[in-house]
Amino acid sequence: MIAGLAWLNEPCLPFDRTAAEAARRRQDQLTKPRGSLGRLEELAIRLAGLQGKPMPAADPVQILLFAADHGVAAESVSVFPQSVTNQMVHNIARGGAAVSVLAAALGARLEIIDLGMVTDPGPIEGVRSERLGPGSGNIAREPAMTSEQQAGAMNAGRAAVERAIDGGARLLIGGEMGIANTTPAAALACALLDLPPADLVGPGTGLDAAGIAHKTEVVATALALHATPGSTPMELLGRLGGFEIAALTGAYLTAAQRGLPVLVDGFIVGAAALAAVRIQPDVRDWLLFAHSSAEPGHRAILEALNADPLLQLGMCLGEASGAAMAVPLLRLACALHQNMATFAEAGVSEG
Amino acid sequence: MIAGLAWLNEPCLPFDRTAAEAARRRQDQLTKPRGSLGRLEELAIRLAGLQGKPMPAADPVQILLFAADHGVAAESVSVFPQSVTNQMVHNIARGGAAVSVLAAALGARLEIIDLGMVTDPGPIEGVRSERLGPGSGNIAREPAMTSEQQAGAMNAGRAAVERAIDGGARLLIGGEMGIANTTPAAALACALLDLPPADLVGPGTGLDAAGIAHKTEVVATALALHATPGSTPMELLGRLGGFEIAALTGAYLTAAQRGLPVLVDGFIVGAAALAAVRIQPDVRDWLLFAHSSAEPGHRAILEALNADPLLQLGMCLGEASGAAMAVPLLRLACALHQNMATFAEAGVSEG
Repeated sequence: MIAGLAWLNEPCLPFDRTAAEAARRRQDQLTKPRGSLGRLEELAIRLAGLQGKPMPAADPVQILLFAADHGVAAESVSVFPQSVTNQMVHNIARGGAAVSVLAAALGARLEIIDLGMVTDPGPIEGVRSERLGPGSGNIAREPAMTSEQQAGAMNAGRAAVERAIDGGARLLIGGEMGIANTTPAAALACALLDLPPADLVGPGTGLDAAGIAHKTEVVATALALHATPGSTPMELLGRLGGFEIAALTGAYLTAAQRGLPVLVDGFIVGAAALAAVRIQPDVRDWLLFAHSSAEPGHRAILEALNADPLLQLGMCLGEASGAAMAVPLLRLACALHQNMATFAEAGVSEG
Repeated sequence: MIAGLAWLNEPCLPFDRTAAEAARRRQDQLTKPRGSLGRLEELAIRLAGLQGKPMPAADPVQILLFAADHGVAAESVSVFPQSVTNQMVHNIARGGAAVSVLAAALGARLEIIDLGMVTDPGPIEGVRSERLGPGSGNIAREPAMTSEQQAGAMNAGRAAVERAIDGGARLLIGGEMGIANTTPAAALACALLDLPPADLVGPGTGLDAAGIAHKTEVVATALALHATPGSTPMELLGRLGGFEIAALTGAYLTAAQRGLPVLVDGFIVGAAALAAVRIQPDVRDWLLFAHSSAEPGHRAILEALNADPLLQLGMCLGEASGAAMAVPLLRLACALHQNMATFAEAGVSEG
């Protein structure tokens, strides 16, 4: 047990079967053929069980955007220079990035947390600085982080979820920004799933075939160095992850412990979700999967988590953008559940 | 040519390649890896070409809901009694149906048009009465409608689209309500696609296997009676369709002629869209496909139209509900297109 992480053992809240059953009964009374709203019915019932209320809500939505740099960028695993992490954090905070636009359009709250970029940008309006160092270590040569940094990252995720809950959030979305971070995400998922790098490594932001082949070798090197037999999920997270990935893992564990449903984004966040589920399997109950990423390795993560995402839009941007796209589906599912008339109310004959 | 339908020959408006190309150039300058927004990029570019503006919009949305009864209900092809058409029209108008809830949540305009139910309900607040008769004919024994009724239905669809355009609509959704209407939709699609009934007939609102087998025989009987070799799409629509299906066909033809993009709902509306494309192939350019219905015959219609719908939610409710669910995707695609910063604006390095 890493110091400062005793909370990892707190149990997840249970699914409220009574509230879910009440929601299911209501769905069967609404003026539509039974089951004709498909997954929207399942969503309303599932949210009812998670929120412990027969009339669930997908509002307010809290988006937590964790940013950090990665030492493995030195291995030329991304088409973008590492300075883009810093530039994009500014862009997100100023409203110009995809997640900024989506958060504004959805009326979702967006908190940006800098966990450690290569260069300290100093204060940025709209960004919370919780620097753990100048980026994580180069996983091809050294562990991603120290135990202290891992505890700091996971506690940063936990504290952010606690702020979200204190603020009244009913749905959590985690996102990330960090040049090169598909590499640690792939490495961590390989180690957790015991799969070869070729199954998890993809183009990220746009590598060509040669770039993917090189990235696959980098991941293989990192796995040979760190994924020793018998390693625990926590050890693999600390050696192969990144600050934002560890923060997301801490955030998801905390959300499940405190009873806040999570809408899971794509590949990188998926690796963090996988780590959280391997640390505590009951976390899985609290995860709704928003979309299938175009990043090919996402499929293995989704299969391992028995997840069938709501959207297949060919997105692979990160920044929580895929999860944000699914928010209207949840909200409309809740609106239908709450506002449709029953057969009795409407005087409509049942089939 | 049926009297009163000379407009069927008016050409569709062309896709504006200049506006689409401008939108594509903008997408490539936004602060994200190229292509990383997947289908959202395609949607923004496609809408730009359809609306003739580099900055397209998916608002205001007009939903047209056409209701009618079907004589083929006498053949016991639905689990719901025919009186439910009338009851549901009241429910939709009062705000209790799925489409009512979705239209309210989306801020979409909803117009309900009664084209002829078995019993004239008299004036209903919020419903436009354009009765063509007490429902269409029983297609297992007689044609669905006369030439005059077909012209009336298609002109009702046309007039509704003209009202929508006059009201400033930028996106059109057509929907339907009519007990038993998966049967004429399946028959019409079979005839247009030259496919056997078993490929198109499904459970509709909830038939069991025996019910589906019976419905398949009813469709086979209707096809033997009406789908004579050499029949035109207009003839098949009049003999095998229904008032609301013909109205939707007229609406889609008009939308394409007047330059209003259409978001296409599921199975029944899909049969109407197929008829419109068979009458004028250029209509296809104006159709965006919202969702894959759980009604199994939808697949054949989508394949024939080379359509890859945005959503797969297992819905099969009708009432335009599947199309309504996709509206937020289009709106968010437009918001991202319009509001994201470019690399130059944000000072972000390109890959």
